[in-house]
Amino acid sequence: MVKVKFLPFEEEYEVFEGETLFDVALRAGIHINASCGGAGGCNRCKVRLIAGKVEGEIIEGLYYKACQTYPLTDVVVEVPLTAILDKTALYRQVKKRAKSLEISEVKSILSPLREVFLRLKEPTIEENTSDFTRLKDGLAKQGISEPEVPLEVLRKVPYVLRQKKFTATAYVYQDPGTSKNYLVDLTAEPLEPFLGVAVDVGTTTLQVEVIDLRKGETLGFASDYNPQIKYGDDVITRIEFCKKQEGLEVLSKVLKEKIVLLIKEALGTRGRLEDIKLISLAGNTVMTHLFLELEPRYLREYPYVPVATEFPVFRGEDLGFKGFNPVVQLIPCKASYVGGDIVAGVVASKMCEEAPITLFIDLGTNGEVVVGNQDFLVCAACSAGPAFEGGGIKHGMRATLGAIEMVNIDPYTYEPMVVTIGRVKPVGICGSGILSLLASLFRVGLIDKSGKIKKDLSNPRIREGSEGWEYVIVFKEEAQTEEDIVFTEADIENVIRAKGAIFAGCQILVESVGLSLKDIERVYLAGTFGNYLDVEDAIYIGLLPDLERDRFFFLGNTSLAGARLALFSQERFAKMREVANTMTHFELSNHPGYMDAYVAALFLPHTDETLFPTIKK
Amino acid sequence: MVKVKFLPFEEEYEVFEGETLFDVALRAGIHINASCGGAGGCNRCKVRLIAGKVEGEIIEGLYYKACQTYPLTDVVVEVPLTAILDKTALYRQVKKRAKSLEISEVKSILSPLREVFLRLKEPTIEENTSDFTRLKDGLAKQGISEPEVPLEVLRKVPYVLRQKKFTATAYVYQDPGTSKNYLVDLTAEPLEPFLGVAVDVGTTTLQVEVIDLRKGETLGFASDYNPQIKYGDDVITRIEFCKKQEGLEVLSKVLKEKIVLLIKEALGTRGRLEDIKLISLAGNTVMTHLFLELEPRYLREYPYVPVATEFPVFRGEDLGFKGFNPVVQLIPCKASYVGGDIVAGVVASKMCEEAPITLFIDLGTNGEVVVGNQDFLVCAACSAGPAFEGGGIKHGMRATLGAIEMVNIDPYTYEPMVVTIGRVKPVGICGSGILSLLASLFRVGLIDKSGKIKKDLSNPRIREGSEGWEYVIVFKEEAQTEEDIVFTEADIENVIRAKGAIFAGCQILVESVGLSLKDIERVYLAGTFGNYLDVEDAIYIGLLPDLERDRFFFLGNTSLAGARLALFSQERFAKMREVANTMTHFELSNHPGYMDAYVAALFLPHTDETLFPTIKK
Repeated sequence: MVKVKFLPFEEEYEVFEGETLFDVALRAGIHINASCGGAGGCNRCKVRLIAGKVEGEIIEGLYYKACQTYPLTDVVVEVPLTAILDKTALYRQVKKRAKSLEISEVKSILSPLREVFLRLKEPTIEENTSDFTRLKDGLAKQGISEPEVPLEVLRKVPYVLRQKKFTATAYVYQDPGTSKNYLVDLTAEPLEPFLGVAVDVGTTTLQVEVIDLRKGETLGFASDYNPQIKYGDDVITRIEFCKKQEGLEVLSKVLKEKIVLLIKEALGTRGRLEDIKLISLAGNTVMTHLFLELEPRYLREYPYVPVATEFPVFRGEDLGFKGFNPVVQLIPCKASYVGGDIVAGVVASKMCEEAPITLFIDLGTNGEVVVGNQDFLVCAACSAGPAFEGGGIKHGMRATLGAIEMVNIDPYTYEPMVVTIGRVKPVGICGSGILSLLASLFRVGLIDKSGKIKKDLSNPRIREGSEGWEYVIVFKEEAQTEEDIVFTEADIENVIRAKGAIFAGCQILVESVGLSLKDIERVYLAGTFGNYLDVEDAIYIGLLPDLERDRFFFLGNTSLAGARLALFSQERFAKMREVANTMTHFELSNHPGYMDAYVAALFLPHTDETLFPTIKK
Repeated sequence: MVKVKFLPFEEEYEVFEGETLFDVALRAGIHINASCGGAGGCNRCKVRLIAGKVEGEIIEGLYYKACQTYPLTDVVVEVPLTAILDKTALYRQVKKRAKSLEISEVKSILSPLREVFLRLKEPTIEENTSDFTRLKDGLAKQGISEPEVPLEVLRKVPYVLRQKKFTATAYVYQDPGTSKNYLVDLTAEPLEPFLGVAVDVGTTTLQVEVIDLRKGETLGFASDYNPQIKYGDDVITRIEFCKKQEGLEVLSKVLKEKIVLLIKEALGTRGRLEDIKLISLAGNTVMTHLFLELEPRYLREYPYVPVATEFPVFRGEDLGFKGFNPVVQLIPCKASYVGGDIVAGVVASKMCEEAPITLFIDLGTNGEVVVGNQDFLVCAACSAGPAFEGGGIKHGMRATLGAIEMVNIDPYTYEPMVVTIGRVKPVGICGSGILSLLASLFRVGLIDKSGKIKKDLSNPRIREGSEGWEYVIVFKEEAQTEEDIVFTEADIENVIRAKGAIFAGCQILVESVGLSLKDIERVYLAGTFGNYLDVEDAIYIGLLPDLERDRFFFLGNTSLAGARLALFSQERFAKMREVANTMTHFELSNHPGYMDAYVAALFLPHTDETLFPTIKK
């Protein structure tokens, strides 16, 4: 593997397959001006080749465009002066923004859908009890009593039993909550393949995994946007949409149809739809309601009562699935805004079974926060608003192609280093970009503690626009859009409110159990947004508590991981039910201290600077 | 009420509304020649008016046709000589062929479908658990734990609870076998009306009763032929039909459609289809299989194994019902040929809870026989063949309009008194007529102990026909058909085989528990055929054991009575399950003594005349 050294720094960095000099600098935390997001259009990310060979375009007779240049050998390049001066502020561990944590191992595989081999005695004229009685007796000997048997399975029984001289395989779903047994299928030979599907129903994204239920292995994956987006960006607008005639039916239908399409995609040629015998689904409470076509309106009407938080076991046909009839199990929810995705994550992360006091945060439109360990669990939802998903931000957007995902500002020239998803010309700015930008603005002094822009600078990027003062991230010449991409004071205020809500939620929750933030031994960041979050930035603006950086872990999609676990471990699924039942939920809006904590958190990083000792320093 | 005296007898008989002189004579057991079944066509039933006034047609200037003559005042009539001579043989209690027994009383009404009134606490911000959890907690307080909840009910929950401030009525079905609870419905106000339906699925006839589940009262009744008849007269031909492509689906479908039609008919204007929340269905094992669309072929293949004898609880929609979704409970069966109709009857008759040793007989294509009392129950099916339903009999027919239901033969002239259903010209002869005819033939000496016709008589009614010797019941001039209605030696042989099978079954069953027939303290005759059976005739030919006549009771349709009981008494339904589980079943075809007993019973009344002391005398 070839290496690159960015003069004047002495460190060398490995170059991974397909990386440009810009990518390496980004990983290394070295600022290189860039406005076009890495698309090769702005000619600002110029570096000078000192030693080694590269493949790339020479500009101005002297420089290479870092974002379009690939090292061929070990190289030494020189970064222009503006960047060097910025080094002290920028040089940090961007690469390892937090440790990622491998989750969802399980000791032994015992799906809630058990495979039970039966060798029954053949009937004789002396002992000619019915096939069904014989089958039930055989199951009872294996500890499965009084199974529910759907008519379609009962109808198969005489044929199946007579195929292999009364030996057969029964597929029995055991509800971990009620211990009730359901005879899902009966076959003469064991099913091959024997498949399950884990589904994470996010407000924005759907993720589907096809799992071999015998081995617990993932065989296929598919993901797409939640098709409900076209009826409403967030849960609130979707709940409103449900008030329309057939609104709920429509939202439920498009979601279920999309899930089936994704299952087919993830399945590929590995099996047929009817080979899928179990679906395990995790989602927030609103998504779970919409999936089941349960009235969601009371979730957002005081006092915020869900229709259900624990769910019966359903069959595919109950939900209108055609062509297959799997058991559908849903990860239980806790409250209107602490859903099955969080319960799944708490169990998947094992925080509920280990000694360290852990703060689990899933950042999204609502920031769900859980604090606890093996002895206690408390949770709350912080109504952050949509800022972290680009909502309510003038040029905010989802984290898709062309979204600015990282911004670093040169402290002298205020020129930004702009990185976009897909390294194409910028379209707008997404959550991680917004956090990064806010931190950078604050770090270089372009905004003050209250988020107000410094107005006495004569810099073309700092100006008063139609909606008040703003910072120009990208001028329209370098953007895909017809206009400058800006970040306004109003945007900053929205982001501060969002981060304040999350931080105050964490604080209140921790204090509610008699602890303080510094007692937190681990911070688990869940969800897609968490995965792209820069911990340093997040602490810098006061979103996350100022703890040792090695206490922060990225967990990725814990909702999907939990749904997957519940597929092949009955015990893990039972644990989720237990967590949903025993975890204490705080309704923050009703908590006496919350409003004060929130107001105090509406500064950068916080009114109480002692909470952020490393930032203060 | 006017009275009639038939000279030369001194007794007077009351005349009921609409009765002809013929009807009164029939009740009184007075023989009057008649060939046309009471249709007024044969002019043989002539009587002479001695005193009083009648309305009727005078024939031969002197006589009235008894079957067309209505007494207007007290009257005295004289019956022609031929009848008088027959008196000693004929004068018997025809009217009270056996006592009828009122069954299906129940002490307290507690349907398996319970109506549970709930007054739940309204949620607050401090206590905002889900509607479903709240509901389950409320049910648990009333002893209903972990109910199964279908999605359609779960979807209603939030709306219903908010209609009357979290007071509601839950409809919970408790499976008496498994004690599992099913939340069938939830309403803000108690359902009005609250209806159930009892269904008796007979091979020939369907009977349906609509019941008020709160009061246990019957509100409506409807009955019709089983529409499967057009695919096969008896269970065997229907099982064969099921071997055809979609044969089973067709038989199941037509049956269920007909049941729904009958329910609508019985319901009338008393409610809507969706007011029916519980259906209780009893039928023989084959009918129950066909209703559920379960493969029936193994019922008649050695070793005669049913698919199921105990059934899960179903919902109407599982069975394809449209427009209503009641719980459907099926009375458990015992074995391939001892079905839910018998189990229902055993419980409805209470024989299983009383001290007297009772012989319960349901006569039909299969004669099902149960012997027992509160301490034991044994049962068997006797393969009688279709003779009692007119099958395998040259001019046999079902008990419908024009079927000869009673025949009495003058011991001197061998002229018959023929009575038809509906008093129309005869079409053929049905089961009760066949028994009556056989008894009469034997009584007047026209056949011997082995059922052979006395051939040395020169009587136009005794002749050798194309199928051997026969007795002419009705000459074609007086029949609706184009031919003489006859009863052949082959017919007689079939009937003797049928009665022999039943008698031998009773005998073996009684002996299997160490008793003899004379230990039987009560004989319960169930089913429609039983209702029209003349006990004297049945004993005379050796079908029923020769016990004191006051031990015989008609129970009517005990299958329907049991289905009705199970509708409004959970305890009674549980008892049926207990009876099905504990009753001992004998497979007669496999019983070492059965064949000998059967062969010995192929005489009139029996090879062993000591078994029939009153007949011997």
